[in-house]
Amino acid sequence: MRKVYLDNIAATPLHPEVLEAMLPYLRDTYGNPQSIHGWGDAAREAIEGARAKLADLIGGQAEEIIFTSGGTESNNFAIKGLAQAYQARGKHIVISAIEHFSVLHSARTLEKWGFAVTSVPVDGYGLVKLDELTKSIREDTIIVSIMHANAEVGTIQNIEEIAKLLKGRGIVFHTDAVASVGNIPVDVKDIGVDALSLAANQFYGPKGAGALWVRKGVRIIPLLDGGVQEGGRRAGTEDVPAIVGMGKAAELAQMDMPYRTGYLSGLRQRLIEGMTSRIGHVLPTGHPDNRLPGNASFCIEFIEGEAMLMLLSSRGIAASSGSACTSRALKASHVLTAMRIPPEIAQSSLLFTLMRDNTEEDIEYVLETMMPIVDRLRQMSPLYAKFLKKHSGGR
Amino acid sequence: MRKVYLDNIAATPLHPEVLEAMLPYLRDTYGNPQSIHGWGDAAREAIEGARAKLADLIGGQAEEIIFTSGGTESNNFAIKGLAQAYQARGKHIVISAIEHFSVLHSARTLEKWGFAVTSVPVDGYGLVKLDELTKSIREDTIIVSIMHANAEVGTIQNIEEIAKLLKGRGIVFHTDAVASVGNIPVDVKDIGVDALSLAANQFYGPKGAGALWVRKGVRIIPLLDGGVQEGGRRAGTEDVPAIVGMGKAAELAQMDMPYRTGYLSGLRQRLIEGMTSRIGHVLPTGHPDNRLPGNASFCIEFIEGEAMLMLLSSRGIAASSGSACTSRALKASHVLTAMRIPPEIAQSSLLFTLMRDNTEEDIEYVLETMMPIVDRLRQMSPLYAKFLKKHSGGR
Repeated sequence: MRKVYLDNIAATPLHPEVLEAMLPYLRDTYGNPQSIHGWGDAAREAIEGARAKLADLIGGQAEEIIFTSGGTESNNFAIKGLAQAYQARGKHIVISAIEHFSVLHSARTLEKWGFAVTSVPVDGYGLVKLDELTKSIREDTIIVSIMHANAEVGTIQNIEEIAKLLKGRGIVFHTDAVASVGNIPVDVKDIGVDALSLAANQFYGPKGAGALWVRKGVRIIPLLDGGVQEGGRRAGTEDVPAIVGMGKAAELAQMDMPYRTGYLSGLRQRLIEGMTSRIGHVLPTGHPDNRLPGNASFCIEFIEGEAMLMLLSSRGIAASSGSACTSRALKASHVLTAMRIPPEIAQSSLLFTLMRDNTEEDIEYVLETMMPIVDRLRQMSPLYAKFLKKHSGGR
Repeated sequence: MRKVYLDNIAATPLHPEVLEAMLPYLRDTYGNPQSIHGWGDAAREAIEGARAKLADLIGGQAEEIIFTSGGTESNNFAIKGLAQAYQARGKHIVISAIEHFSVLHSARTLEKWGFAVTSVPVDGYGLVKLDELTKSIREDTIIVSIMHANAEVGTIQNIEEIAKLLKGRGIVFHTDAVASVGNIPVDVKDIGVDALSLAANQFYGPKGAGALWVRKGVRIIPLLDGGVQEGGRRAGTEDVPAIVGMGKAAELAQMDMPYRTGYLSGLRQRLIEGMTSRIGHVLPTGHPDNRLPGNASFCIEFIEGEAMLMLLSSRGIAASSGSACTSRALKASHVLTAMRIPPEIAQSSLLFTLMRDNTEEDIEYVLETMMPIVDRLRQMSPLYAKFLKKHSGGR
């Protein structure tokens, strides 16, 4: 059976060159970067090399990069660490309604700590409403955190414009760029943010590796206390192989960026067009143009999402219905809800996220496989029966 | 030149079988354990297998294991998460004076959050003074955190006896067992703790992998908010290869335990005896018997510790002067200070931490190499000149 992996939002495979780069650090160069001997020196040089490559990818400086264990830690660190650092100035935080749970739930924790949080709504495309954002800013607002791109519906925010709105107000602007860094060009100088989260496993790097970029001069309170690693901002023995892998992945992303964005956008358009033209009652979600290259997201009316995922899996196709971080919680996506998609449609969410290994043949296989699955599931749907009755009855 | 790695406190090399176990998850099985498809199922089965092995190693239950990014995160999670969970009952925490910085500095953060922290002193061997511990307990004490074994001086605490002291007082007892799990038998049922931190890179497992074991029924507030991973107690995509590696390392540790403890204790005794008999003015630190098998720690009087490490490194020998997490901070160790070793002696701290690959030839090479290095450094020491003058003058 053909195997088609279209769940790269959940985790990308390692690029073979990334694994090659990691292997020496899994085998022979096992020192601790903090140690005062040759083994330590080799490990330290390796992570500093990776830091430079990562900084280069996002247009930042090496010393502004803090390594973390992944996107969730980066977002927790940003939200909690910046809020604690600036709380003397105010205790109000602004986020959007479609943030990843690592931002949303960190904000909820801040509420328990006595902070106030405003959640800004989005439009039907998942774009943050800028007028609402402007209205949400208060005298005591210290942090605004708006994600760069939403992994569930692909929509890319106009972060640059938001940065301009916030400029000169003494607000620290953080963006969760986990879904975008390595997949589309992201330059911290251009977009004008003060802090940015990223994760290696979103761009063919390893799991367990992420970073928080914090602009020089911006203060942050550590999430992990302990040793002197990462300039005293993130304690814990550095995961050298994973960091080296993230550095290599960053280097490859920078080189391949034009190809990746062009190739994946083409495949994605083909998939969206095939889905909407060949399968009835398919609603593409997210923004039609400002979207992640490899992201094709839909609601398939009159379908139960989880059953569809399992049938696709049985035919060798990996897809998802949204964030892997909550897929097993089986709730309607808060992202689709915020975009005012009714719950009975939102529960039929289907998300294909493409990678560089996918081919046109993969897309064709998915489209061919989808059709009988959708038919079969719809035959089982009481809602679909009702719909058919209503429409035939109307004639 | 011979290469002798004796800095296993900083990081152990990966056991070759651990790397073999990890490779499939770095290459082909790259799914996210939360995903609803075959790739996700394979990843989920892998981490649940690892969880069972880890639980088995420490005598706990699989569902009591929470995976983390390492020892530092486990300790931060334990101290901050337990304190937040039980703060309605009281706001007093007890630790020892020789805890790792990830515990010490987490406790310091708790003080900023309004908690009170008592630090219990140790004796000259580094053993926690039990009468002082008893005296430190108050009505509002909610957490006691005492490390199982100290990595810098090797001393193993009598955790079982401490647990008995605390029993029935409604106190949650946490132990940082990062230095001991996988190196000596640790069974949570025997030692009677409620929470225990461990890290894979202390027993031939990968960096970036640790765990917090929390006894069923004990509450804890997450450090990392976000997705539903780890039963909602630790968000973030699971680092599948690292977790699989930790599981394999746990399995190997359990099988090899009698050999590891016997073999390493023998080598360590040989090293300690050689150092004290062949090099003058060497003071072994820590407990002579209740100590980690592979841990040989000393103060070498009239020597500057860092210069010694660099000279040893130039001769192919990796050693340390204490915790790698602070070695680059170049302060006198708080552990030696707590053991009342004067600062001028503490700054000559030398720590050899052995591993299963080390041989008798390694030990002989180290002893032969040490002698001229110590001689040379002492010739440069004004304190040694003073000492010699005083003693020759007395004759």
